[in-house]
Amino acid sequence: MSKKIENDPASASILVEALPYIKRFHHKKIMIKYGGHAMIDDEAMSFTARDTVLLKYVGMEPIVVHGGGPEITRSMNKMGKQPKFIKGLRVTDEETMEIVKMVLVGKINTNIVSKIGFHGGKGVGVSGKDSELILASKKAPHKILNIVTGEEEEIDLGLVGEISSLNTEIIEMFTDNDHIPVISPIGIDEKGDTLNLNADTVAGEIASEVMAEKLIILTDVPGLLKDPNDPNSLIKKIKIDEVDNLIEKEIITGGMIPKIETCVKAIEGGVKSVHIIDGRVKHSLLLEIFTTRGVGTMITK
Amino acid sequence: MSKKIENDPASASILVEALPYIKRFHHKKIMIKYGGHAMIDDEAMSFTARDTVLLKYVGMEPIVVHGGGPEITRSMNKMGKQPKFIKGLRVTDEETMEIVKMVLVGKINTNIVSKIGFHGGKGVGVSGKDSELILASKKAPHKILNIVTGEEEEIDLGLVGEISSLNTEIIEMFTDNDHIPVISPIGIDEKGDTLNLNADTVAGEIASEVMAEKLIILTDVPGLLKDPNDPNSLIKKIKIDEVDNLIEKEIITGGMIPKIETCVKAIEGGVKSVHIIDGRVKHSLLLEIFTTRGVGTMITK
Amino acid sequence: MSKKIENDPASASILVEALPYIKRFHHKKIMIKYGGHAMIDDEAMSFTARDTVLLKYVGMEPIVVHGGGPEITRSMNKMGKQPKFIKGLRVTDEETMEIVKMVLVGKINTNIVSKIGFHGGKGVGVSGKDSELILASKKAPHKILNIVTGEEEEIDLGLVGEISSLNTEIIEMFTDNDHIPVISPIGIDEKGDTLNLNADTVAGEIASEVMAEKLIILTDVPGLLKDPNDPNSLIKKIKIDEVDNLIEKEIITGGMIPKIETCVKAIEGGVKSVHIIDGRVKHSLLLEIFTTRGVGTMITK
Amino acid sequence: MSKKIENDPASASILVEALPYIKRFHHKKIMIKYGGHAMIDDEAMSFTARDTVLLKYVGMEPIVVHGGGPEITRSMNKMGKQPKFIKGLRVTDEETMEIVKMVLVGKINTNIVSKIGFHGGKGVGVSGKDSELILASKKAPHKILNIVTGEEEEIDLGLVGEISSLNTEIIEMFTDNDHIPVISPIGIDEKGDTLNLNADTVAGEIASEVMAEKLIILTDVPGLLKDPNDPNSLIKKIKIDEVDNLIEKEIITGGMIPKIETCVKAIEGGVKSVHIIDGRVKHSLLLEIFTTRGVGTMITK
Amino acid sequence: MSKKIENDPASASILVEALPYIKRFHHKKIMIKYGGHAMIDDEAMSFTARDTVLLKYVGMEPIVVHGGGPEITRSMNKMGKQPKFIKGLRVTDEETMEIVKMVLVGKINTNIVSKIGFHGGKGVGVSGKDSELILASKKAPHKILNIVTGEEEEIDLGLVGEISSLNTEIIEMFTDNDHIPVISPIGIDEKGDTLNLNADTVAGEIASEVMAEKLIILTDVPGLLKDPNDPNSLIKKIKIDEVDNLIEKEIITGGMIPKIETCVKAIEGGVKSVHIIDGRVKHSLLLEIFTTRGVGTMITK
Amino acid sequence: MSKKIENDPASASILVEALPYIKRFHHKKIMIKYGGHAMIDDEAMSFTARDTVLLKYVGMEPIVVHGGGPEITRSMNKMGKQPKFIKGLRVTDEETMEIVKMVLVGKINTNIVSKIGFHGGKGVGVSGKDSELILASKKAPHKILNIVTGEEEEIDLGLVGEISSLNTEIIEMFTDNDHIPVISPIGIDEKGDTLNLNADTVAGEIASEVMAEKLIILTDVPGLLKDPNDPNSLIKKIKIDEVDNLIEKEIITGGMIPKIETCVKAIEGGVKSVHIIDGRVKHSLLLEIFTTRGVGTMITK
Repeated sequence: MSKKIENDPASASILVEALPYIKRFHHKKIMIKYGGHAMIDDEAMSFTARDTVLLKYVGMEPIVVHGGGPEITRSMNKMGKQPKFIKGLRVTDEETMEIVKMVLVGKINTNIVSKIGFHGGKGVGVSGKDSELILASKKAPHKILNIVTGEEEEIDLGLVGEISSLNTEIIEMFTDNDHIPVISPIGIDEKGDTLNLNADTVAGEIASEVMAEKLIILTDVPGLLKDPNDPNSLIKKIKIDEVDNLIEKEIITGGMIPKIETCVKAIEGGVKSVHIIDGRVKHSLLLEIFTTRGVGTMITK
Repeated sequence: MSKKIENDPASASILVEALPYIKRFHHKKIMIKYGGHAMIDDEAMSFTARDTVLLKYVGMEPIVVHGGGPEITRSMNKMGKQPKFIKGLRVTDEETMEIVKMVLVGKINTNIVSKIGFHGGKGVGVSGKDSELILASKKAPHKILNIVTGEEEEIDLGLVGEISSLNTEIIEMFTDNDHIPVISPIGIDEKGDTLNLNADTVAGEIASEVMAEKLIILTDVPGLLKDPNDPNSLIKKIKIDEVDNLIEKEIITGGMIPKIETCVKAIEGGVKSVHIIDGRVKHSLLLEIFTTRGVGTMITK
Repeated sequence: MSKKIENDPASASILVEALPYIKRFHHKKIMIKYGGHAMIDDEAMSFTARDTVLLKYVGMEPIVVHGGGPEITRSMNKMGKQPKFIKGLRVTDEETMEIVKMVLVGKINTNIVSKIGFHGGKGVGVSGKDSELILASKKAPHKILNIVTGEEEEIDLGLVGEISSLNTEIIEMFTDNDHIPVISPIGIDEKGDTLNLNADTVAGEIASEVMAEKLIILTDVPGLLKDPNDPNSLIKKIKIDEVDNLIEKEIITGGMIPKIETCVKAIEGGVKSVHIIDGRVKHSLLLEIFTTRGVGTMITK
Repeated sequence: MSKKIENDPASASILVEALPYIKRFHHKKIMIKYGGHAMIDDEAMSFTARDTVLLKYVGMEPIVVHGGGPEITRSMNKMGKQPKFIKGLRVTDEETMEIVKMVLVGKINTNIVSKIGFHGGKGVGVSGKDSELILASKKAPHKILNIVTGEEEEIDLGLVGEISSLNTEIIEMFTDNDHIPVISPIGIDEKGDTLNLNADTVAGEIASEVMAEKLIILTDVPGLLKDPNDPNSLIKKIKIDEVDNLIEKEIITGGMIPKIETCVKAIEGGVKSVHIIDGRVKHSLLLEIFTTRGVGTMITK
Repeated sequence: MSKKIENDPASASILVEALPYIKRFHHKKIMIKYGGHAMIDDEAMSFTARDTVLLKYVGMEPIVVHGGGPEITRSMNKMGKQPKFIKGLRVTDEETMEIVKMVLVGKINTNIVSKIGFHGGKGVGVSGKDSELILASKKAPHKILNIVTGEEEEIDLGLVGEISSLNTEIIEMFTDNDHIPVISPIGIDEKGDTLNLNADTVAGEIASEVMAEKLIILTDVPGLLKDPNDPNSLIKKIKIDEVDNLIEKEIITGGMIPKIETCVKAIEGGVKSVHIIDGRVKHSLLLEIFTTRGVGTMITK
Repeated sequence: MSKKIENDPASASILVEALPYIKRFHHKKIMIKYGGHAMIDDEAMSFTARDTVLLKYVGMEPIVVHGGGPEITRSMNKMGKQPKFIKGLRVTDEETMEIVKMVLVGKINTNIVSKIGFHGGKGVGVSGKDSELILASKKAPHKILNIVTGEEEEIDLGLVGEISSLNTEIIEMFTDNDHIPVISPIGIDEKGDTLNLNADTVAGEIASEVMAEKLIILTDVPGLLKDPNDPNSLIKKIKIDEVDNLIEKEIITGGMIPKIETCVKAIEGGVKSVHIIDGRVKHSLLLEIFTTRGVGTMITK
């Protein structure tokens, strides 16, 4: 089932070179946001699961929050339901919410948990409803300008929520008992209704709450690029007080803006570093953690 | 949010009358199989959830295994997929398995967990994949006689499994930490693939494994009836060595046969009593536990 | 040994109605002052004991402090010793102290503990001497005006004490280990001598020290009455800052004054609510805890 | 408050000589039966209490069971009630039982606990009713021969019991938490009624149950004497299989017979040695434990 | 302070290939016998220490027993004392024993502990005297034939001992508390005197006692060789029942005989596999553990 | 193996007189600095070890730091190496350091540990390298005036260090697990090199860090003397603010100055009292602890 390490000291020395990182992150929580766009195929998911199990075995405490946008859209299409977005947020009526729940919790989460189990980890699926992990409230309607009438209109996003409070004791119970929690980004409101949440935000806020050392966001881009069309224009490192300037200069734009804001908030909440990396690249997770230079873009204080 | 107990001693004495049962089942595990046919509407599910929370608060350790057949069928129909059954077992191809998983784990399980949370309990959803709770293997093909050819034919049920082994430590971790586990009846095989399992069997085997005191099966019938058309013909109590006789006499027939066999196996596995009751009746769960005569049919050694 | 709950949902729903209270007081300490005048007969004591056991089984932490004035007086009379009171306080010479100790610790306390045991609880008798729970010092002599001489005279109350300090770790040890402590109100001074203490004060101060949620005083009146002769003039609720006014208006008078002052001190010490109720009424304890309106007089901040 | 050890090595060496015994009995339970006849005055009780506290501080686990016959008789006389004995057993009607309880639990027990507290130990009073420590049943009536009629007659001893079963978990809880339990020899029957028990028997059976290393019986004789009138005829050591012979030879007679039988039973129950010593002699307890030859009579296997 | 892993997936995949071994030996005890002849220089010792720390960080429980023969001989020479051996055993008079103790405990052990600490591990030095870890007794004198007289003579080896019993609780305390114990092979006899022990034997017997998974013996040969002069004649694997045959055939000879016998005894005592490897080769420890084929000679059941 | 306590109460009462001290120091840490000059012979060391074991058994937590100057000098002489001192500090080149380590850790420490074990204690040897207990740095060179040249010269003391920081968790682990740690005064610097430390300083700083109640320094003088030639001129008690005055008056001189300064620092660091006593006197340790007047010189706030 497993290949062998070449039987010569050169190969073994790679293990030894990982030692400083293994020490530095010993018993530290590592929050992994596994984005839907990084789940390109079953093999990629299997690789990410195995890397996560490795982190656990060498003494870290990985926690996974997953996304699933593309898969939700595929399922909606299959059921003949037209997805609708406003400024990147999925308008979520009750029927959509049911599909979101089924895809995230019933399909993607169980899939990741299976793969973690297959590679020898004790994965355990969690949603924001379990032990009321994520209490949320409905997001205020979006205000947009109707260019015909010139008036501001409110557009209700439906069952899209924002986090009110977190009860992470269940997460600590899992990490303290050798498990790897895999979290679906849905929340519960005070009436017991389900709300659709942004997975980056969930990962960031839980990372702060459990005092994670790192938040690693697995996406489908190499990181933050100066020129989005040039993968060689990667920005390796930014500090949170440089962010505003980068937004002004339109280097950070569009959907990257809320993502980066989540990162900034996580850092302000106590996470030591946030990393945006390309989750489609094999072992990018390990390369980020076990190498001096890391990969992707690192955001720090 | 809650009504009041009438302010006179007669009413309060009902609480005191529950005391012997509260004592008898103190710190005892109570396995509740919540059948799909008993989930008649949202209000009924809410009642069952609340009764379950009450059991937890008065010192018992309820564990829920849920079914979901009718809901799965509804979802398949919605997606234009025709359900197929052989001798009561759902033929489960890969596409069906995906739907089963999404409905059980993503919809019904999260729904029950939400309702438990709403009533003040710490529900937590679990599937057989979490921490590899249920290891299963594919069921052997069904052999049936082709009446045309006169030959025996094998019919493959697809991804239908039977339990190989259980790792219930995660369940004990939940009950020891004040949680109410809610279990979806799906298993994982050695390749990491998902298998569809019979919920009664899952409830029965986990009940034995965790040494539950009682297994209560919430169905849509009042219990075992001498005459299926006469609800007054309820058999209140049977011993497991009377079962064969009842099958011979065709009092236990059809789908009730495997259900009763599961009950017998649970009793043989150490569960003190099994109860088949009508889960659609308000508070039937409480009436079973807190009254001398109980409700439905009780099966014991 | 126990009656049954009627086998219909209406009866079971009473249990469910108790749920919000069971939740609210889960793992909370409930201090019960069981006054000597409320111990009208053996059956009444048995009822109170059983209600106390029920509180324990549904997850609360009851602690009992008992009185015993009438029984002490009876025993003194039997031994041909004349009880003597000054302003409601028993003058306690050494011989009286011996009788007080024997009656409280040897008779009433063991009696309550037996009844708790009989109803399935783990009662355990404690006096202020056990593990030096209550360190006390002799009360200063009472000063009264001799109306003949016109001079102030000091009257020594003898072995009557007031609490100097509490070592409640033994109480926490009991409640943490599933026991119901039953406390006799006697203290020990620095020379090792025994002192007679006021049971209300003991209940109030221990309630504060162990951060009890409620202090329930079981007496032989329905609560605080506007007109002591009219049981219908019950004051249902007062706030501690209304007390002075009520004393001025002579609604609170005589022996009720120190009792209410004890209640005020308990509230100031952190107890959420104090209740003066008629302990002679069957299940008054349960009705206080499990009903919206409660019974008797509630004192709060 | 304390005298000094002479400031020369000779004196200090006594401490060192105690070391082997301190080691041998480290964390071992030492059951001390403190007989009523050994409680000759307040000073003697204070000495015994202090020695007991010393045992605790040097690492042993002393447990005290006390008697109180002489004091009960004094109290009965004071209340004008005539004590009655049959073959050394007190005939115990309900009124006597009340007095027994009050004297044992309310007076002697609290007195010992106070003295232990005064010397710096955490004494805690326990009776057989606490946490149902001692379940007992009524002793069968005594059969005696009426020498007038020549017929056998039954004489009911009243509320005199024998031990049915012990729940010593409360005792272990105390010793595990640094307390010295002081036990009054009364039991509780299945109806919740109190029964008068023989203190030697209670000490012996609890000693077996908690696996005590030693049972030390503090009496008012120097031990077992060959000639009861000659204190120099002390038998220093007997083995349990010599007992029958000594009874036959009438060296063990009268009230000493049941006492010795209790010792034999304790040894058979696993106690390593039983010691009958003169509790009136200052520090006899320490001399027994910390010297090679010990004092009094030692009974072993 | 540490080099980097090459920033490409190929390099990272070596980590992943170690995963199966990390899993297999998770929380397993690995006994490492670090022989004196393998300690060729400071750098080699530093490498071995670092590899040991790595094992600890990835979840194993390494325990080190060290030798030190060459260093003892060097020190004796320096002090002008002539070492003397009989059949490979050092004749140990009192003066030699002092030197042995000083070199093993004071020099080599502290040196290894320092190096473990330098690489981030919590090393802790232990000798057989600590907490009486190794109780030993003097070895019987060696009998040899005097070829001149033709008579058997006894030659006393002096303070050379053999293990009587082990108290490994201190070892478990260290491994349970994140420490790496480093053990010097000296024992203590019942008079408190120190005895010189064979380090292989100490490693083997402690390995059995603590139920180690592996015993790895770091020597200065590549393993067991068919032809001692040909390093390519390495025997990769033998079973313990082949050993006698190999001795007979004189493939195992001389000092290798007792070494192999120690291995056999360890396997019989429950250790899963023993490995004789060349400790002078960089990372041989890691190559043994993290590769399929391992290095050196493996001995199993 | 042990003598007996005289079989009369007078002798036993000495034990009772120790009770107040046993109580006062219960579970308190007692740091014992066992100076090299107090180790006059094997019997003296054995006595000190036995007294230390007694302290442990009666409930205190002794910790030993030992010296060894005379023994180091003896060993150096034996190896033909000339010891060199500057102002009482041993100039420590690498070869000397090796000898220091071997003598302290390999000889004296193991010797004390053996003796503690022999008397029934669980001694465990520790050096500053174990679990990096003592991190140190090289002391700055000594500046002395060259009286010939009239210039200030720097004299390097070599591998003599001063404490940078302490990691005493290993010490607490030992005392919490019934062990008596015996500490050799060597430290480790950031490069992993060993440094020679002053044992008084090590004892004083660890005493502060672990919040010891007492620091007892066993020396070869009766304490601080007004007239060094008159043993009757002992100063029984000084307060730390009197020290400067005594130095000025030249009552504290020479090597006693740094010793007293260490004591002052320990008191300022939270140790309640420091005692300088004559460790050569039999049982001086016990006499200090168990007598009112103590022995030697006591230093307090």
